[in-house]
Amino acid sequence: MSSGSDIKKPACDELRPLAEQLFAQLRHASFDGVGVTRDSFGPAETAAQDLIALAARDAGLHTERDRAGNLVVTLPGREPLQSFIATGSHLDSVPRGGNYDGAAGVVAGLLALICLKRQGIVPPRTIKLFALRGEESAWFGKSWIGSHALFGLLSEADLARTRFDSERPLRDYYEDIGADVAAIARGEKLLDPAMIGAFLEVHIEQGPVLAAQGLPLGIVTGIYGNLRHRQVLCRGTSAHAGATPRFLRHDAVVAMADFIMRLDRHWQQWLDRGKQLAVTHGIVGTNAKEHAISRVPGEAVMSLEIRADNNETLEEFHGLAQAEAQAITRERGVAFVFDEAIVNRPAPMDPRWRTRLTELCSGVGIAQMPLASGAGHDAAVFAHAGVPTAMLFIRNTHGSHNPEEHMEMEDFLLATDVLMQAMLVCD
Amino acid sequence: MSSGSDIKKPACDELRPLAEQLFAQLRHASFDGVGVTRDSFGPAETAAQDLIALAARDAGLHTERDRAGNLVVTLPGREPLQSFIATGSHLDSVPRGGNYDGAAGVVAGLLALICLKRQGIVPPRTIKLFALRGEESAWFGKSWIGSHALFGLLSEADLARTRFDSERPLRDYYEDIGADVAAIARGEKLLDPAMIGAFLEVHIEQGPVLAAQGLPLGIVTGIYGNLRHRQVLCRGTSAHAGATPRFLRHDAVVAMADFIMRLDRHWQQWLDRGKQLAVTHGIVGTNAKEHAISRVPGEAVMSLEIRADNNETLEEFHGLAQAEAQAITRERGVAFVFDEAIVNRPAPMDPRWRTRLTELCSGVGIAQMPLASGAGHDAAVFAHAGVPTAMLFIRNTHGSHNPEEHMEMEDFLLATDVLMQAMLVCD
Repeated sequence: MSSGSDIKKPACDELRPLAEQLFAQLRHASFDGVGVTRDSFGPAETAAQDLIALAARDAGLHTERDRAGNLVVTLPGREPLQSFIATGSHLDSVPRGGNYDGAAGVVAGLLALICLKRQGIVPPRTIKLFALRGEESAWFGKSWIGSHALFGLLSEADLARTRFDSERPLRDYYEDIGADVAAIARGEKLLDPAMIGAFLEVHIEQGPVLAAQGLPLGIVTGIYGNLRHRQVLCRGTSAHAGATPRFLRHDAVVAMADFIMRLDRHWQQWLDRGKQLAVTHGIVGTNAKEHAISRVPGEAVMSLEIRADNNETLEEFHGLAQAEAQAITRERGVAFVFDEAIVNRPAPMDPRWRTRLTELCSGVGIAQMPLASGAGHDAAVFAHAGVPTAMLFIRNTHGSHNPEEHMEMEDFLLATDVLMQAMLVCD
Repeated sequence: MSSGSDIKKPACDELRPLAEQLFAQLRHASFDGVGVTRDSFGPAETAAQDLIALAARDAGLHTERDRAGNLVVTLPGREPLQSFIATGSHLDSVPRGGNYDGAAGVVAGLLALICLKRQGIVPPRTIKLFALRGEESAWFGKSWIGSHALFGLLSEADLARTRFDSERPLRDYYEDIGADVAAIARGEKLLDPAMIGAFLEVHIEQGPVLAAQGLPLGIVTGIYGNLRHRQVLCRGTSAHAGATPRFLRHDAVVAMADFIMRLDRHWQQWLDRGKQLAVTHGIVGTNAKEHAISRVPGEAVMSLEIRADNNETLEEFHGLAQAEAQAITRERGVAFVFDEAIVNRPAPMDPRWRTRLTELCSGVGIAQMPLASGAGHDAAVFAHAGVPTAMLFIRNTHGSHNPEEHMEMEDFLLATDVLMQAMLVCD
């Protein structure tokens, strides 16, 4: 592979003023008095696309809207018969959100293209930047609408979804922006995944890991899938707390606590062995119809969510949880009843691309770490469509989906540099 | 001490037909179609008193109602200048309750007196049997009204309490039965505790311990007091379950489970060391206003009830619980907030009387075990008034406060024998 050694480094530093200007313009165009609000498929999202398109055309890049209204910026490569390299992210935000969740990846892609263009570099593959629409589920109750549309994955029911604020259906919004609603409605693939050699998405980390570790960048191992039980019921035997001694109790709360602690210990051990997963009991409770302070609880419920960056981890840990429930059943004379598991498949990132990104960082001395993405991204849709996909996370100190998101321009430019070099990789 | 070796054994066996007849009459007089209902201070409780009084007078014993309407049956002793020995229990039941909870202790006392009387034995001390009124909190929302009245412990507010079914105040019920309401209202001691050399109460066990151990009798170590926190709040930090890795979590549910399991292990260890206590978290829950399956829980609450047969155990375990909460606070970065502890003092049984009862059982080959009473009893009121108090439990296979209560006549007669012999103890 080529590591892009024919370009000057750090090439993107020259574009820092443009980066700052673009983020300022994006913020200005969508400031709502508290944070930024770029409504999916609405005027603020379109205005953000226009800003990006204008900057692209100013740099001599070709821009267009695809049939689903996503903005596409193209830098032609030397080998037009090869699949192209895709990059990008989304421009919409949650209401009163931050300026970087989504936009950072679009601006990084644009700057990388501009940087190459300015230097007169013709990349081996054509590069297409996607500014995808409707990534945030806050608006239509569905995530990643833009990438779903690209791969023919929206249903009639999806098009009938209404936006929470206007109560207008997605179909109307698609018509507003001149999309090919008929093709979207019949599930036509607007883009053949086989045409895409890779999808590389830059995004701010939505959690605190990189900040806590003092690292500017993270290389995503996979986008967490999850396996959820809305309710695991632990059934014991209600009894008088005074008259029922320990050896005759079947205490549902203690059994549940035992279960939670066993999974907690396993989780730590699995992390120690290098697995990427997260285990959460977000909801627990006794039965308000019968519980009392002085009653041995006969019933307790908890939710169970397992997240992992690959299916094997998800399924193995799920099996372990059930085995522990059986062990506790035998030891404590209780019963565990798991409701039906709801599974969202993980999207492992492409191993070759992970290695490449790691090597590119090492090559220029950028400290990074591998980490899983707990939140979902358009990249998962590309990965599930069969596109070799990778993600680069930028350190962010205040979480996402709030006005306090914070990304250092320094970190952003490092990510842009790595992305640009990755685009020149040719295999 | 005298162990009553001057009486024939098993003297009470001759009274088996009378015992069966009395229990049958009591049941018949208060059968409600499902169980027995002997309403506190109402006609069914009075009818039960009348049945007992009639049987007592038939046997030549003196009967009277004290100034609080409790039935008192007296067998004069040889030493009228000494304090008397008291025995007894209550005759009321919960609605749709069983025939033995309370009544067993009154019938046992009566049979013991009749047995002595028939044999012409004049006990060293005068013996008084109390059939106490209003023990069950089901009726007026207050327990042990009869014994409270005896020791001047009822307040004006108590007299204003209304019975759940009639909504008439306790004061009216006291007037109905011709009690000295004025004396009760001003908190006069109707009975000087110093006059009572001992209070010995026979009662069915309300839990399953003796049945599980295959033992007919239990000698009560103490009546559990309790220390309750209605709410222990565990405050962590809410976070996105996908984006927040383990090492950055402050998970309130896991911290709560950790706390519950630590106390559970300590409880077992304390039992192994011979302590009598019970630990219960009857209510647990996350905050429904903010919890979600995919959210690291930022808040969890639990109740904490510690029961023990003496104050030291109660306070020491409470201290241990707080120390564990502090340890978890340090380890997990959460905070525990305990609401105000509500304490009901335990009533330890008199050590000398416990030893005597144990020796009396051994002397006639009755298998027994020491056990704490989880439920409260009139005996606790006597003990708190400073009367040396002891209790004897009779095996019962189906719990109390339900029609399925079950006591074997064989076990009952053993208890009656032991009680009778205990009454002859002279020190």
